[in-house]
Amino acid sequence: SVPPGMLPLCHRPPAWGRAARQPPSLPLAPCRAFSNNKIIVELDESSGVATMKFKSPPVNSLSLDFLTEFCISLEKLENNRACRGVIITSAVPRIFSSGLDITEMCGKSTEHYAEFWRAVQEMWLRLYGSNMVTVAAVNGSSPAGGCLMALSCDYRIMVENPKFSIGLNEAQLGIVAPFWFKDTFVNVVGHRVAERSLQLGSLHPAPEALKFGLVDELVPEEKLQEKTGAVMAQWLALPDHARQLTKSMMRKAVLDRLVAHREEDIQNFISFISKESIQKSLRMYMEMLKKKKG
Amino acid sequence: SVPPGMLPLCHRPPAWGRAARQPPSLPLAPCRAFSNNKIIVELDESSGVATMKFKSPPVNSLSLDFLTEFCISLEKLENNRACRGVIITSAVPRIFSSGLDITEMCGKSTEHYAEFWRAVQEMWLRLYGSNMVTVAAVNGSSPAGGCLMALSCDYRIMVENPKFSIGLNEAQLGIVAPFWFKDTFVNVVGHRVAERSLQLGSLHPAPEALKFGLVDELVPEEKLQEKTGAVMAQWLALPDHARQLTKSMMRKAVLDRLVAHREEDIQNFISFISKESIQKSLRMYMEMLKKKKG
Amino acid sequence: SVPPGMLPLCHRPPAWGRAARQPPSLPLAPCRAFSNNKIIVELDESSGVATMKFKSPPVNSLSLDFLTEFCISLEKLENNRACRGVIITSAVPRIFSSGLDITEMCGKSTEHYAEFWRAVQEMWLRLYGSNMVTVAAVNGSSPAGGCLMALSCDYRIMVENPKFSIGLNEAQLGIVAPFWFKDTFVNVVGHRVAERSLQLGSLHPAPEALKFGLVDELVPEEKLQEKTGAVMAQWLALPDHARQLTKSMMRKAVLDRLVAHREEDIQNFISFISKESIQKSLRMYMEMLKKKKG
Repeated sequence: SVPPGMLPLCHRPPAWGRAARQPPSLPLAPCRAFSNNKIIVELDESSGVATMKFKSPPVNSLSLDFLTEFCISLEKLENNRACRGVIITSAVPRIFSSGLDITEMCGKSTEHYAEFWRAVQEMWLRLYGSNMVTVAAVNGSSPAGGCLMALSCDYRIMVENPKFSIGLNEAQLGIVAPFWFKDTFVNVVGHRVAERSLQLGSLHPAPEALKFGLVDELVPEEKLQEKTGAVMAQWLALPDHARQLTKSMMRKAVLDRLVAHREEDIQNFISFISKESIQKSLRMYMEMLKKKKG
Repeated sequence: SVPPGMLPLCHRPPAWGRAARQPPSLPLAPCRAFSNNKIIVELDESSGVATMKFKSPPVNSLSLDFLTEFCISLEKLENNRACRGVIITSAVPRIFSSGLDITEMCGKSTEHYAEFWRAVQEMWLRLYGSNMVTVAAVNGSSPAGGCLMALSCDYRIMVENPKFSIGLNEAQLGIVAPFWFKDTFVNVVGHRVAERSLQLGSLHPAPEALKFGLVDELVPEEKLQEKTGAVMAQWLALPDHARQLTKSMMRKAVLDRLVAHREEDIQNFISFISKESIQKSLRMYMEMLKKKKG
Repeated sequence: SVPPGMLPLCHRPPAWGRAARQPPSLPLAPCRAFSNNKIIVELDESSGVATMKFKSPPVNSLSLDFLTEFCISLEKLENNRACRGVIITSAVPRIFSSGLDITEMCGKSTEHYAEFWRAVQEMWLRLYGSNMVTVAAVNGSSPAGGCLMALSCDYRIMVENPKFSIGLNEAQLGIVAPFWFKDTFVNVVGHRVAERSLQLGSLHPAPEALKFGLVDELVPEEKLQEKTGAVMAQWLALPDHARQLTKSMMRKAVLDRLVAHREEDIQNFISFISKESIQKSLRMYMEMLKKKKG
């Protein structure tokens, strides 16, 4: 039966696994209640392109509710034959997503940590393994989990504002990016850039992000929508089937690695995050954020 | 015994495997009849450098006959102690090689598909695993299988004509580059460039190919021969034994992967190419090529 | 018990393995006699930064004595809680390190080769796997094993003198860089640059080394110390624990590979180096060096 905390999204195996295996016969579970207003989803049926706009102020942090809504929305699009491509972007000024919601990782129960981490994994498995063309229109800063979402797309366009930065800065907070964040990063920027950037917890301003290959191109903010549409059209010009099989060939090894170690990865997260020293640094970080705001 | 369709070239294991294992005791089979005029082979015994010039108009497509002749010629050079390096280039204007011959993949028998695919594998195993220094003098466009041949060499020099392009454009035809095309590509340009280029089926004009590392340098057409000779001399200045062991160390993992999955890869090719939808897109593609010509 | 030739450094498992396993209960062995003046070690307790200056004229070659001293010194720093970072540099003008001492590989006993090779492995395991921040201040040429030491650090700063070169030039000497030299190189510069550079045994002048990513930046000689200090401070600004776990995540696969094949690697080295043809080329190379000097 479905373990507690399992998102009831898995009636169907994720896209990248379809060819290889039978859908697991999970019992249909009643849908978990979740807010349904953190992400605006619009589908243009004529072009087959959906846009998912993150609208969870102040900073689009990846809370359990946000992640659940993201996964369910993406799943619906994945199953909709009218939809072939997805653009993810932000409806909040100056921020794409601030990454994992630290309040979900502070002072909560073991069960909560497990449920939260499973949702983070699920988000990545579905996005990195999506059969659709995925383009990130990065119109604001994008640290940590926000960066992971961008890295998981097929193409990244960032607004050329040097005040916007992107990177896996977990080390700055005293925590460690999980191996599958790292694998995704290495697949985009290579081993050396990833090693240095992860150890320093670097947040790269847009021009540096372009130089290191974290994003594929920069555009002025007012050109972002036009450019994103043009890139999407270019990718959609390819026959879906060949493109999907090619994408799966490139990403399967890294996706399979998390699938094979998923429960272990959850246990690692729980035992790491439950340490008093880690809880303390997260509390200090939250205090700092509050003061900054105030 | 030798399976039907097996090229009778394997009296000796390929170069890359020599150190690791005993030659398999395959029975000597009579040579398969094959045309012997699609590739002009010249060996300069003073320098130890052979040149293989593809002369199979109109586009040097990799037919079963072409591949068989290529493998036998390469094998002869590999066994010739007077030969230490090979240059591959084209004798047909404006085209290096158009890649796999689509007529071999359309409306043929399962046995034919198996024989053809085994020949494609054999070409790659012998070229990517060659003990000799291999340099591609890319003097024309080089899509798909033509690109693979260039990628399998130690060094790639391309004529700086922006009308000449190179890339693994299989996805454009609705087909998928096999995993060992992909492995070879990733080893040259890295994961990110390969992922994007393979999904888009990109054909990169010469200047872009240089920028992405698909080729090592560009030269004006009239300098190609001189430059190729100079590069070959530089590589031949190294002691063969150390260079060969180093090359094998770099390429063995990827070569071994096909050797371990060779029959499976043939079956995959057959079942993919036999699909009515794939046959249909290949027929459409051939029609398009005919119209273009006419 | 400790095999003969084993450096008695392993009372504690190397840093990179600490989290994963219990320290092996090796018997305490009396310290092997070793010279103690080839490396000047200075620790600035206020900053937590140690400097190891190679002072083994004429060329800081990596003899058994040098390697033993290096490992013991590094081990002491690793165990010293006051030390968080190490800078390696040279006190000999114009040379960082000339690499493995060829006299240790010529005309010696099998036992000696085994002891020497184990010391080379130990140096790499400890340096590449160090928990401390490691920065190479490359103030001179750095071929072969000298290059490996630089590649094993977290960051490389080189003096911008184009007369100084760096690279794994083993192939030039008719020998082959071991797989873990290659793995370390690929992790820094990627597969393609490594393949070409290793096969050609290239020594890259400083500007080219920067272009290929072998070193992270170039500075004028008079700015080297200041710049190295600034880089070290930047890396030390990160919390140790998160940085160490991140470093281990990036390097563990490659470190584990040598640990798993260590004895086999020693046997390979012995049988390779014992070949008469290899002994002959090493003798010729030493003759050439002597003539050059004289």
